[in-house]
Amino acid sequence: MLSHIKIVLVETSHPGNIGAVARAMKNMSMTELCLVAPKIFPCSEATSRAAGADDILARAQIYDTLQTAVADCQLVIGASARSRTISWPEISPRQCAELTTTKESDQKVAIIFGRENSGLKNHELDLCHFLLRIPCNTEYSSLNIAAAVQVVCYELFVATHTQIPVSIGDVDKNIKATAQQMESFYTHLAEALTDIGFMNPDKSKSIMRRLKRLYNRTQLDTKELDILRGILRMSQDNQKK
Amino acid sequence: MLSHIKIVLVETSHPGNIGAVARAMKNMSMTELCLVAPKIFPCSEATSRAAGADDILARAQIYDTLQTAVADCQLVIGASARSRTISWPEISPRQCAELTTTKESDQKVAIIFGRENSGLKNHELDLCHFLLRIPCNTEYSSLNIAAAVQVVCYELFVATHTQIPVSIGDVDKNIKATAQQMESFYTHLAEALTDIGFMNPDKSKSIMRRLKRLYNRTQLDTKELDILRGILRMSQDNQKK
Repeated sequence: MLSHIKIVLVETSHPGNIGAVARAMKNMSMTELCLVAPKIFPCSEATSRAAGADDILARAQIYDTLQTAVADCQLVIGASARSRTISWPEISPRQCAELTTTKESDQKVAIIFGRENSGLKNHELDLCHFLLRIPCNTEYSSLNIAAAVQVVCYELFVATHTQIPVSIGDVDKNIKATAQQMESFYTHLAEALTDIGFMNPDKSKSIMRRLKRLYNRTQLDTKELDILRGILRMSQDNQKK
Repeated sequence: MLSHIKIVLVETSHPGNIGAVARAMKNMSMTELCLVAPKIFPCSEATSRAAGADDILARAQIYDTLQTAVADCQLVIGASARSRTISWPEISPRQCAELTTTKESDQKVAIIFGRENSGLKNHELDLCHFLLRIPCNTEYSSLNIAAAVQVVCYELFVATHTQIPVSIGDVDKNIKATAQQMESFYTHLAEALTDIGFMNPDKSKSIMRRLKRLYNRTQLDTKELDILRGILRMSQDNQKK
């Protein structure tokens, strides 16, 4: 029931935390765990903290980069405790559960949790449609990573095990673009904006970040992506004439 | 705000769990921890897992028996994962939060968590008005004690901080574009797409409709609009060269 949602851990330092995350997931009927460049894994400490959820550890997918881990996902959500200078659209765990369990079930979703000490970097948040923030004490806001996963998975479980389906008003039946398709769109966009002289690739990081945020927020479908890429190609062709 | 509710741990075996409970509580602005006959406490492992919540450990009250720990409470709630032969009135964490945060604030409340391996005994449940059950996978229902405390305290925090959930995409402080600004953006867009040869103005109504739908959905702010119009101007300029 929740197999379309994967939990992605980025560069987790302590293998015990990976085990505790697996346990928290299995408690809430979640099965898909992805590890991006874990410091130490597999590891007996992870297995011991998993306390019987070793099946989740055994089937965990391991990736070198976050990009590849979320490549097949249409909806990417990044957990964060910190405030950011550029404000991302923010959702709570309950809103996250609404958003990910009431949409078409064939949409793949990634929920990303960053490093224990430093969370997610800005370039990693660039991959995200939403920033997930757990309501908590503002004076002491850093939850243990397994505790954060527990709260989020608990809300997902509650949302799928109540009989009243809530619609968030998305009637769009078109297939959403995957993270991989968005990545190659952004590469194409940066290239085209450089070609037409709008951007200097070295100095325009903040413009690209703003544009990514804009297009991530809107969750492009594949037809829209085709149109936008057609426009980019045409302006590049014009430039070359 | 939540100081009338105490978390009571009964005969906890692992001091690390006591520390993790303190952290989970402090994350959710809970301050009152009671320990009934803890196996090992105080302990450096508890302090280390508390990760900065050592003030909660320092003020923790220690008791020999559960009776004395809950003696001053009007409402006593016992957490349990197991089914009981004698059925207690059962509540979920969300119901528990409603029950304990909407009643008169001078009512003292205890929420009790049992031993890591065996939970609460029946004679301990006899002290409880309600049994608290966290919704979870029935095949794998035993949450780590700190994870269980985290979920319960999270619901308590959410119930008392209801102004926190913000509607999706509404946290952006930038000024949204007006309908008039969007209209002149669309006019400019149609003009630029015609200039670069992407669109024939007579035949491309459906493409413009799709693009409008895309940009309307995303609710552009005025800075984003400036960037997009800058891009349009630049591709038009290139065309005219």
